Amino acid sequence: MTGADAKEREYRYGRDREMARGASRVEAISDGIFAVVLTVMAVELLQYGPARAAGKELPDALTQAWPSYLAYVITFAIVGHIWLAHHNMWRYVVRVDQTLLVFNLLLLLFVAAIPFSADLLSDNLRSGVTEQRLTAVIYVGTLLGEDLFFNLSWWWARRRRLLHPDLDPRLARAVARRLMLRPLLYLVAFAFVSVDPILSLVLYLAFVGLYLIRGPGNLPRSSNAE
Amino acid sequence: MTGADAKEREYRYGRDREMARGASRVEAISDGIFAVVLTVMAVELLQYGPARAAGKELPDALTQAWPSYLAYVITFAIVGHIWLAHHNMWRYVVRVDQTLLVFNLLLLLFVAAIPFSADLLSDNLRSGVTEQRLTAVIYVGTLLGEDLFFNLSWWWARRRRLLHPDLDPRLARAVARRLMLRPLLYLVAFAFVSVDPILSLVLYLAFVGLYLIRGPGNLPRSSNAE
Amino acid sequence: MTGADAKEREYRYGRDREMARGASRVEAISDGIFAVVLTVMAVELLQYGPARAAGKELPDALTQAWPSYLAYVITFAIVGHIWLAHHNMWRYVVRVDQTLLVFNLLLLLFVAAIPFSADLLSDNLRSGVTEQRLTAVIYVGTLLGEDLFFNLSWWWARRRRLLHPDLDPRLARAVARRLMLRPLLYLVAFAFVSVDPILSLVLYLAFVGLYLIRGPGNLPRSSNAE
Amino acid sequence: MTGADAKEREYRYGRDREMARGASRVEAISDGIFAVVLTVMAVELLQYGPARAAGKELPDALTQAWPSYLAYVITFAIVGHIWLAHHNMWRYVVRVDQTLLVFNLLLLLFVAAIPFSADLLSDNLRSGVTEQRLTAVIYVGTLLGEDLFFNLSWWWARRRRLLHPDLDPRLARAVARRLMLRPLLYLVAFAFVSVDPILSLVLYLAFVGLYLIRGPGNLPRSSNAE
Repeated sequence: MTGADAKEREYRYGRDREMARGASRVEAISDGIFAVVLTVMAVELLQYGPARAAGKELPDALTQAWPSYLAYVITFAIVGHIWLAHHNMWRYVVRVDQTLLVFNLLLLLFVAAIPFSADLLSDNLRSGVTEQRLTAVIYVGTLLGEDLFFNLSWWWARRRRLLHPDLDPRLARAVARRLMLRPLLYLVAFAFVSVDPILSLVLYLAFVGLYLIRGPGNLPRSSNAE
Repeated sequence: MTGADAKEREYRYGRDREMARGASRVEAISDGIFAVVLTVMAVELLQYGPARAAGKELPDALTQAWPSYLAYVITFAIVGHIWLAHHNMWRYVVRVDQTLLVFNLLLLLFVAAIPFSADLLSDNLRSGVTEQRLTAVIYVGTLLGEDLFFNLSWWWARRRRLLHPDLDPRLARAVARRLMLRPLLYLVAFAFVSVDPILSLVLYLAFVGLYLIRGPGNLPRSSNAE
Repeated sequence: MTGADAKEREYRYGRDREMARGASRVEAISDGIFAVVLTVMAVELLQYGPARAAGKELPDALTQAWPSYLAYVITFAIVGHIWLAHHNMWRYVVRVDQTLLVFNLLLLLFVAAIPFSADLLSDNLRSGVTEQRLTAVIYVGTLLGEDLFFNLSWWWARRRRLLHPDLDPRLARAVARRLMLRPLLYLVAFAFVSVDPILSLVLYLAFVGLYLIRGPGNLPRSSNAE
Repeated sequence: MTGADAKEREYRYGRDREMARGASRVEAISDGIFAVVLTVMAVELLQYGPARAAGKELPDALTQAWPSYLAYVITFAIVGHIWLAHHNMWRYVVRVDQTLLVFNLLLLLFVAAIPFSADLLSDNLRSGVTEQRLTAVIYVGTLLGEDLFFNLSWWWARRRRLLHPDLDPRLARAVARRLMLRPLLYLVAFAFVSVDPILSLVLYLAFVGLYLIRGPGNLPRSSNAE
């Protein structure tokens, strides 16, 4: 091995470590935000929970607070689902540039707003039709904003060759196609909101369930299991 | 060294780093949630603490707030205990797949609900028998849900060979057996809740103490100390 | 390869890993704080949001809460912007010493105060001139404090040779110059606060936009893309 | 190179990575808790801050809220200081066992309680002598609890050889001695609390300043700068 080779290898090592740190730090800030968002609704249970409402009987108070429990479970399902997709996508990102970081921050801006819109939605499930439609529109808007920047992130990472060189381009294209499908499904699910808000919620949860069984989920499996 | 070897080694390195990142990111999101859950009750102390209740004398106010301190210490003991078990388990996980990620998220769903149920429990220690039993049932339910997905995670990780290849299969089986014992002990402890809620709490803390001295705790020790 | 060489290499490896952990842990604590700060305003939306104000009609209540949404977006833009700059700077830091850690903690002290000052600012946009000026001064003060310790961190890291040896000294100097420019631009933007607070806010957001297109942003790009 | 050597090296690599992950995960959970604790008081500013107190004039309201600002800065100084010490200590820990993890969790139990006790202290600076002494005792108790488990962690890590093998035993002993000195200094500072609470606070901050210039701070410097 010549000195030039050693120099080259050392340089590569340095560059590689630096890049790995770059991508892993994006995951760190994202995971911090995901962790806060996932627990926020459980913390809310503490504050608005029936334990503090001294006036009522405990069983009644606990029963009446069901929209808060629903908001917690919905938020956890949706944000957990987004985290899984985020995790699957970022496993293939080995380098980052300024634009990808900005797209990721804008994605997180919408993710952090999900508890607010999920809370609005669950609070107004028993309200009039106007309130139901308005809160559903805010809710779909938040999810579509998140999806937009998810699609932009993947598109940019592919275009600027920031992905792992081992990743099959056909797989990358398939992921892009599936990501583009997601907002369409959301729109279909929420077109039903004027018909029946509960039905549209059930449809949405069915999509999440479908995603967990098929969808980008088979991406890491095929790569890990060889 | 031939070119094919170098290629193979490089590929392995790439795959290995990718997998390590996958597993470490699961730890990152879990630790973020554990950190929020561990500090939530201390933050609650600030809000419901006596410092803000201007009407009473400080010593009286501090004394009367004892259920809040108790809820903090109980939550910290339980969640700290779960974190230790989570840490011990995930040290042996070197690869992740979609199902394991979903099991881990469902585990975290129940972990994030622990402050709420611990708060309910400590608030109702002085209430009537109905309230004590109801809050104890919610509490045991939360812990059993968490235990269920803990057992499922370990079972899946063993079945799909996601564990470190160095891990002795007999050790893995022993861990599985001990994990299955845990919910049984919880049920025994909380069967006493109708007899005496304080006694069942003491029994639970005794189990935690036992776990720290023996239990899965000797797993990393035997592996680290060679 | 002689035994002394192997020893030397092992020692280097040990030292390198230790240092890498040192720098990465600074990023971990910083990212934890950034994550909390980025989500705090969204959590506030939950608490002061119109969903809880049962008295009013929902559309009116949502419209009237616009300063809260504005505070969320402003805080996210500013703190996201600081995170990007922090990320860009710390990619080049490979070693840490006590002084750099203290400078970074003082930077974080000001970052954590940004939600408070952004909230004050957005709350008083409709108030009298005295309130507008006072809140703008608090706001600029928070940002200048953050900028001061940002500049000190970079200056110290360069002086004590804590940066990556591959980093071109001319690039390091260019970054220092650009970092020093930032507080000046803030001061210009907020000199307009007595003329028109909305105008000064627009100017500030224009600076952030400019930073994303040019500014230290081209630093990682030039280094990554070679 | 023989096959046995390669096997051995691979095994070592595996074990080493596993251990590094073990120690780094302790840092992750600790940093998550430190991040929440460091930002909690700034979040409190938002909730009890004068922006929400619509009744008063803004300048008066901001001036009257000074104990909240003080609580924020004190908490940040103390917890930042503990984080620095924690960072310095854990840089030398390369392996973890169950007992060290438990000591670290108990340390964090007291760290998470610091905002509560700092808030109590700053709220009662203007109260009568009884309140000042009581809150000071709670405050010192929290810090002494944290110090106890800090000392126990270091003592255990040294005894069980969990530290980096390169670490000079004389240095390790010197750190242990200095760590033991810390609670003594706290006790001296707070012995003055019955004389003058402000004086004892100033003394405490002087100790923190002293620590930053000398103290365990020169430990990483001497190791990094060679």
